[in-house]
Amino acid sequence: MPLANAIKEALSTQSMVRKMFEEGNLLKKQYGQDKVYDFTLGNPDIEPPPAFHRVFAKMAKEDKIGSHGYMTNGGFPEVRQALAEKTSREQNVRIDGSRVIMSCGAAGGLNVVFKSILNPGDEVIVPCPYFMEYRPYALNHGGSIVEAATKPDFSLDVDAIKEKLSVKTAAVLINSPNNPTGRIYPAADIAKLAALLEEHGKKCGRMPYLISDEPYREIVYDHAVVPPILSAYKESILVYSYSKSLSLPGERIGFIAVGPQVTDADTLIAAFAFATRILGFVNAPALMQRIVAELTFAKVDVDIYKRRRAAFTEILDGCGIKYAKPEGAFYLFCQVPQRKHVSGGELADGGADDTAFVDHLKQQLVLGVPGAGFGKPGWLRLAYCVDEKIIKASGPAFRKAMETW
Amino acid sequence: MPLANAIKEALSTQSMVRKMFEEGNLLKKQYGQDKVYDFTLGNPDIEPPPAFHRVFAKMAKEDKIGSHGYMTNGGFPEVRQALAEKTSREQNVRIDGSRVIMSCGAAGGLNVVFKSILNPGDEVIVPCPYFMEYRPYALNHGGSIVEAATKPDFSLDVDAIKEKLSVKTAAVLINSPNNPTGRIYPAADIAKLAALLEEHGKKCGRMPYLISDEPYREIVYDHAVVPPILSAYKESILVYSYSKSLSLPGERIGFIAVGPQVTDADTLIAAFAFATRILGFVNAPALMQRIVAELTFAKVDVDIYKRRRAAFTEILDGCGIKYAKPEGAFYLFCQVPQRKHVSGGELADGGADDTAFVDHLKQQLVLGVPGAGFGKPGWLRLAYCVDEKIIKASGPAFRKAMETW
Repeated sequence: MPLANAIKEALSTQSMVRKMFEEGNLLKKQYGQDKVYDFTLGNPDIEPPPAFHRVFAKMAKEDKIGSHGYMTNGGFPEVRQALAEKTSREQNVRIDGSRVIMSCGAAGGLNVVFKSILNPGDEVIVPCPYFMEYRPYALNHGGSIVEAATKPDFSLDVDAIKEKLSVKTAAVLINSPNNPTGRIYPAADIAKLAALLEEHGKKCGRMPYLISDEPYREIVYDHAVVPPILSAYKESILVYSYSKSLSLPGERIGFIAVGPQVTDADTLIAAFAFATRILGFVNAPALMQRIVAELTFAKVDVDIYKRRRAAFTEILDGCGIKYAKPEGAFYLFCQVPQRKHVSGGELADGGADDTAFVDHLKQQLVLGVPGAGFGKPGWLRLAYCVDEKIIKASGPAFRKAMETW
Repeated sequence: MPLANAIKEALSTQSMVRKMFEEGNLLKKQYGQDKVYDFTLGNPDIEPPPAFHRVFAKMAKEDKIGSHGYMTNGGFPEVRQALAEKTSREQNVRIDGSRVIMSCGAAGGLNVVFKSILNPGDEVIVPCPYFMEYRPYALNHGGSIVEAATKPDFSLDVDAIKEKLSVKTAAVLINSPNNPTGRIYPAADIAKLAALLEEHGKKCGRMPYLISDEPYREIVYDHAVVPPILSAYKESILVYSYSKSLSLPGERIGFIAVGPQVTDADTLIAAFAFATRILGFVNAPALMQRIVAELTFAKVDVDIYKRRRAAFTEILDGCGIKYAKPEGAFYLFCQVPQRKHVSGGELADGGADDTAFVDHLKQQLVLGVPGAGFGKPGWLRLAYCVDEKIIKASGPAFRKAMETW
């Protein structure tokens, strides 16, 4: 079949995930939608906040002339300006709209950034575990992802990053709050990383970018604050999405912003605009641009996620499954428990096979994603962007699974 | 500056176009917005049809739960089904929603198709002149564009395409109605092309795809009909956009469809969905998907463009500028007239330097795009997606320019 070889390969390796989805759907058909505890999908299920609906209705009523029409590839100037003000405040810098490019969510933004900065053979270092889509995003544009370990609590291990730095390093990409661990990297660690990159750049003559993927910036608990990047390191690139903060994952709206002191900012921004054009985004969707510009500090009710986290951790605590307590985002990254029982005629090996445990949970109609899908075998991810009732109802299933593991 | 080399190069070559835009903006500031006759931009200026506003208002009022949320990468199933019905009728085939993938306009759709089918070194043959963005779209995914001449009236020259076919040919890409010529390729020419590809495929063991980029399908004059592709050739891929038919260029909504007999259709569609995901589109914007599904046969008032075409051709006829009479789209592709006057101290060379003529027109505040920008030096493109008043007012400027050329 006349397909690109790279795509053919990718389709066959991703078939495991697809199989999981299909099996999940089959289970739901067989047992009923609410009898299957599906914690696989990292997509917000709660509705956009009331402010979104208000602005949406207003836009539809006005339906201004030219509002669905052409604009420059970077976005409407007034939208870029509004988001520059948001970014200035959150990132502790002063930038204007010329430093912001609207994007089709963070996924679009990261592809635009990689297209703009990667030369063939270039590397992007990512602390592990991480959102595995980063891998194809880098590959799309001739680069590759290099994994760097994190500390046992999943915080940044700056020494591990140091070991991976080379003249091929185009960027270090961090994601805080992190998918899948929920970890927020504190300002002190960001400062340490910035110092490392600075030192490395001076020594080797190539200053890596620090790219910060922040779709979960607003989804934080217990008054946690996500520290700024743009003010911490000169060559920083912020990638933001409204998919989580406004629960708009289907609308594909986000932006890229750079700090005031980034080298040759005008050319970098021109490259982002050009990449936006030739990758076929052309521009971020016009209507959603104008909507988010009026909602720069709006966000969904994070307490909903907080209550779910509490309900879920109670269940996990109750049956002895260990996890990293999330400071942000909406995932519980859990350690696969030691196996106690003989399984399938084999002796218990005390191992931590995440795929086996995920299969085992599935027998109780609990669905999760193996940690291998985030570069961290021996763990699994449970997403709690799922109704609290379903989380609570899953308790007996977890207990039953643990009794037979 | 740490940019991808390919992007650095592209930025410097595109700086001519950017310079033109900037000069245009300067002229408008200097002489007033309505004193500059700007025919450069191929973006529809007329508003979406009333039906769009009606559906938009309805969607905002309902604002259904989950309507901005997650869906599969290919789009909402009911939207895909609605567009499969539209496509079936227009393309004279019977396909269901499984054969349609929603895309971020035609630019997004073409990138998804190229990502899915191109291997390094693969070629895409395009009749010339053509929309030059095809070039970076193919380059993005390791391929390249190979130009094939058209006949003097810009209709398909199937023999010229034949000469360019090789085992490296992944696809032939046509665009009808054509930007910049306005030519619609008749069914007989499509059949001849299909037969050629069939024969070539059988001989060399690689059947090229026929990709049809049809954003101007609805923008046709004098009851012209754009013939179907999917029923004409087995390995066809249709790429469609609502940017022109509904005047929504800022909203980035379109789709890809394949015929009922395309080889290994399920895998091809899976590849399109996967490419949509990893290129960072993830999915076409949710709200616009649902809107266009209710507007499958709506379109802007094409008579507006027809009146503009009449006004513009009257001016060009009056001053002796020859052009291809557009059957569709909204461009006049004009031959650079023979130079009659000594210019800048040099003797008239009878040449057809499109850049010189565009510069000459600019002195009369008329802005167009050199044919070289479409692979056809000696010509220029004038876009008439501009108010009729501006077109009519430009008459004296054209005449004055011709008097001194």
